[in-house]
Amino acid sequence: MTRESELLRHIYERSRALRGAGGVEVGPGDDAAVLEWSGGRLLATVDQLVEGRHYDPRSTPVDLIARKAVARSVSDIAAMGGEPVAALAAGALREGFAQENELFDAMARWAGHWRCPLVGGDIARVAGPSVLSVTVLGRMGAGRRPVLRSGARDGDTVYVTGALGGSLRSGRHLTFEPRLQEGAWLCETLGDRLHAMMDLSDGLGRDGARLAEASGVGLEVSLGSLALHSDAPTWREGVGDGEDYELLFAASGPVPGRCPTTGTPISSIGKVVEGSGCFGVTERGERVDLGEMGWDHAG
Amino acid sequence: MTRESELLRHIYERSRALRGAGGVEVGPGDDAAVLEWSGGRLLATVDQLVEGRHYDPRSTPVDLIARKAVARSVSDIAAMGGEPVAALAAGALREGFAQENELFDAMARWAGHWRCPLVGGDIARVAGPSVLSVTVLGRMGAGRRPVLRSGARDGDTVYVTGALGGSLRSGRHLTFEPRLQEGAWLCETLGDRLHAMMDLSDGLGRDGARLAEASGVGLEVSLGSLALHSDAPTWREGVGDGEDYELLFAASGPVPGRCPTTGTPISSIGKVVEGSGCFGVTERGERVDLGEMGWDHAG
Repeated sequence: MTRESELLRHIYERSRALRGAGGVEVGPGDDAAVLEWSGGRLLATVDQLVEGRHYDPRSTPVDLIARKAVARSVSDIAAMGGEPVAALAAGALREGFAQENELFDAMARWAGHWRCPLVGGDIARVAGPSVLSVTVLGRMGAGRRPVLRSGARDGDTVYVTGALGGSLRSGRHLTFEPRLQEGAWLCETLGDRLHAMMDLSDGLGRDGARLAEASGVGLEVSLGSLALHSDAPTWREGVGDGEDYELLFAASGPVPGRCPTTGTPISSIGKVVEGSGCFGVTERGERVDLGEMGWDHAG
Repeated sequence: MTRESELLRHIYERSRALRGAGGVEVGPGDDAAVLEWSGGRLLATVDQLVEGRHYDPRSTPVDLIARKAVARSVSDIAAMGGEPVAALAAGALREGFAQENELFDAMARWAGHWRCPLVGGDIARVAGPSVLSVTVLGRMGAGRRPVLRSGARDGDTVYVTGALGGSLRSGRHLTFEPRLQEGAWLCETLGDRLHAMMDLSDGLGRDGARLAEASGVGLEVSLGSLALHSDAPTWREGVGDGEDYELLFAASGPVPGRCPTTGTPISSIGKVVEGSGCFGVTERGERVDLGEMGWDHAG
């Protein structure tokens, strides 16, 4: 048997456990997966993980590579306020990389952990860095609408879950927990007062500017009140390090200081204003353009 | 603005045209796409295109790279008998590749051509060959069930659409038409007599063995009666060249010799037998194992 045949066989075998479970009628191994879908809104997102860019192949266990590949896309579903349903993974693996079974098993395990079973996949070899791309499908809970980036309004308060900065340095970029419960809880609790939401992958500066642009408003961040990780000593790290995978959202009215189901803190970090861009205000009152402070994933 | 910001802006702009069209509530540019889904079965597949392996970057126009990337996944939906609904594309692009806008525009155009608008994407840079991965979502028409690889039965006749062989040599691997109409028509016309179906990407030998294995049967191909392209002079090319993207199917009872809506010929090429594997019988009556004749995409 060739290598590909063995890999496909491995995927087929794993798929047997999925059949009939959780709406999965046909898992990996056929031309396409088949899911039962009860109707309503379907969410779909794709994200990539590139060896040497999003993880260091010399120091990162295969399990954590797989985890991050899946978690990045799951985080996008969380940022809509949705629930993951199914995942598909494509791997273009560096020639000589011999842990493909372990990698796909781990992606299947993490996908299952976040309740989006791995229902499809593709494997190829590449004469260069490995690239993993993971698509996650999701749905909105009954009666909920997806929370877009485009709904922030002048006068809203701006919040983040958790703390920012130092993710790459500390290794948190490999072990972060996508804010699924927090996203769904915010939808439920704030309802129509939750105006806009996104997850922070490229840093508050760059991503905040995206939310501002999508909404046609400006964001003004109080740099002295940013919730920072202890290994991110200044607001510059909090704004620019990237890979936080926390939720950034804009809402009106009162917002609890903590998600009750997970204990994740929620901090007010600024406000939505007329205008455009994402600006910070230092404790001395200086105004700083944060829009170009962040991590350019695409390079 | 950085390069990534420009690309994302470009994707946002394209997404405006999609909003509200064909069930697409939110297109690219937010954390996830949002589709209205009326219920029933959802199909999902992912496939990859690797520079230097699936296309020659020196001689292949960007439009045809994009076309093939999308068409490969659309072909998987065709092989289930389904209709494409939406696509997501991730590109890890070789450093220095400067036609990213053209490439993503062309993927969006081809996705639209096959009625699965590009609703999401991701772009990264890679210090190696470009990798494109395309996820296509599809649905089954009313009252139809998806046609799996696993339903072939002893006594069925085995068919292919179109002709086989010479795809890479001739350039057909870049311009093939996914057999959407043929797949849907076969479902409609044959109903429960259509037992198993798949698309031929790795060659009749290798893919036939997969269908046989999934169904727990053997395939016996009459090598003298294979429908071959004129640039594939012998059955060895027809069986082993790969990249045909024709439909291979097993059915009982009469099957028309041509799809009436497209004119695509349908040829009987053999039969399903007890046992296992995909074997050929030459005009001299010699028996040949075809299972390892084919193109290993994964390398």
